[in-house]
Amino acid sequence: MELEAFFPFWDKLTPQQQERVRTRAVERCCEKGTVIYNGGLDRSSLLLVQRGQLRAYILSEEGREITLYRLFQRDVCLFSASCIMRSIQFQVMVQAEKDTRLWLVPAEVYKDLMEESAPAANFINEVLAARFSQVMWLMEQIMWKSFDKRLAEFLLEESALEGTDTLKLTHEAIGNHLGNPREVVTRMLHYFHEEGMVNLSRGTVRLLDREKLETLCRK
Amino acid sequence: MELEAFFPFWDKLTPQQQERVRTRAVERCCEKGTVIYNGGLDRSSLLLVQRGQLRAYILSEEGREITLYRLFQRDVCLFSASCIMRSIQFQVMVQAEKDTRLWLVPAEVYKDLMEESAPAANFINEVLAARFSQVMWLMEQIMWKSFDKRLAEFLLEESALEGTDTLKLTHEAIGNHLGNPREVVTRMLHYFHEEGMVNLSRGTVRLLDREKLETLCRK
Repeated sequence: MELEAFFPFWDKLTPQQQERVRTRAVERCCEKGTVIYNGGLDRSSLLLVQRGQLRAYILSEEGREITLYRLFQRDVCLFSASCIMRSIQFQVMVQAEKDTRLWLVPAEVYKDLMEESAPAANFINEVLAARFSQVMWLMEQIMWKSFDKRLAEFLLEESALEGTDTLKLTHEAIGNHLGNPREVVTRMLHYFHEEGMVNLSRGTVRLLDREKLETLCRK
Repeated sequence: MELEAFFPFWDKLTPQQQERVRTRAVERCCEKGTVIYNGGLDRSSLLLVQRGQLRAYILSEEGREITLYRLFQRDVCLFSASCIMRSIQFQVMVQAEKDTRLWLVPAEVYKDLMEESAPAANFINEVLAARFSQVMWLMEQIMWKSFDKRLAEFLLEESALEGTDTLKLTHEAIGNHLGNPREVVTRMLHYFHEEGMVNLSRGTVRLLDREKLETLCRK
C-alpha cells in the first residue's frame, strides 16, 4: 500500500511537506509475535499497517495484560508516537499478531507537519477519537458486562477474524486479551464445554454451538 | 475568567477568528446538581469552566454510573461538543458538582476554527489526549486494583477536594463515582469502620485515620 493512501489530506500538503514525509518514512516487516513497541520513547514512530494485524495492550506491574484494540490494514497506530502529544500520560504496548508489513513515519516528522497543517492535526484528532471510542467501549464491557458474555463475544470475534471455528488459543492467551487470570478463563471455558458450546483440547478451543454463544452475548 | 485565557493559541488567531469566537460565546451559571449535558446533540458546546466543578461520567442501561474525571477552573470540557469529531462513538454525561460558571462556545464555531487553524486543532488534540490519559488511569485502577484501595483513594481525594475530613456522601453516591453497587460500598465502609479508619453516620463518612488509609493505597 502506498504511503499517500494512509493520509486522506495528502493533497492539502505542500510539495515540500509531501517530500519530507516520503524521504523520512521507512518500510519494515515484523514477524508474528514481535513486540514492535514497548512504551519507550526511542525511535518512536507513527505505524501505518500495510498488511497484517497488530494488537495494542496494557501491562500491569504484575505482568497481567489486557488487549485494548486491534489494528488492521489501512489503520494508523498513534501510541507508538505518543511523544507528538505532551498530554498522553499512559503507555500502550504494540505487538504483531500476524506477519505484518508497516510504514514507519518518525514522530518528529509528523509533529512538525501537524504544527504547520490543520488537516494533518485534525487527522490525528480523528485517530485519537477513534481509539478513545474503542477504549470506552472496552471499559463499558468491563464495568457493566459479566465475564461469560465477554468471553462468548471474544470467541465469536476471534472466529470471525481467523475465519475458522477451531481457535489456536491457550487459556493464558485468552486471559491476556480479556485482562483476567488464567484460572477464571479455564473455569468459564469448562462451563461452556458442559453447556455444549465449545470443545476443548490442548491449546485449542473449537466452537460447537455458535447460536448458543450468540444468545449468551445478547442476554 | 476571560474567554481568551482558555485558549493558549489566542494570539495565533486572526482578528476575524477572535471576533467570531467572542460574539458567539455565551456565559452560563449552573446550580450544583444540574446535568449540563446528557449525551444529546442539540445545543452542543465546548464548556470552559470559569469557576466551580464538573463531573464527567458514563451511565449503563441499568442506570449504574461511574465517574470518569472531574473538571475544575480553567479546564475545557470536550465531550459536550463531541460532534466536532466524527470518530467519537461514546456518550459522556456532564453534571455540575458545585455551583459552576461556564463559557459556552458553540460546537460549530469551534469546528470551523479547527479546520482553519492548526493551533486550534492541536489544542483539541491535547485536551483529548489528557482526557484519554485520565480514562486509561481509571481503567488500570479498575483492572488491576482491588476495591479497598480504590475506595481508600477516593475518600482521601474527596477529603482533599472538599478541604474537610467530614464528607457528606451517601453510599449510593460513592457507588456512582466508583461504578460499584451500593451494597459493595456499604460492606467495605463497615470494614473500614471496624479497622478504625472511618466513622459512619447517616449520609456522612468521617475520616479518622488518614495514615492507615494512605498505607492501604500504597499496598
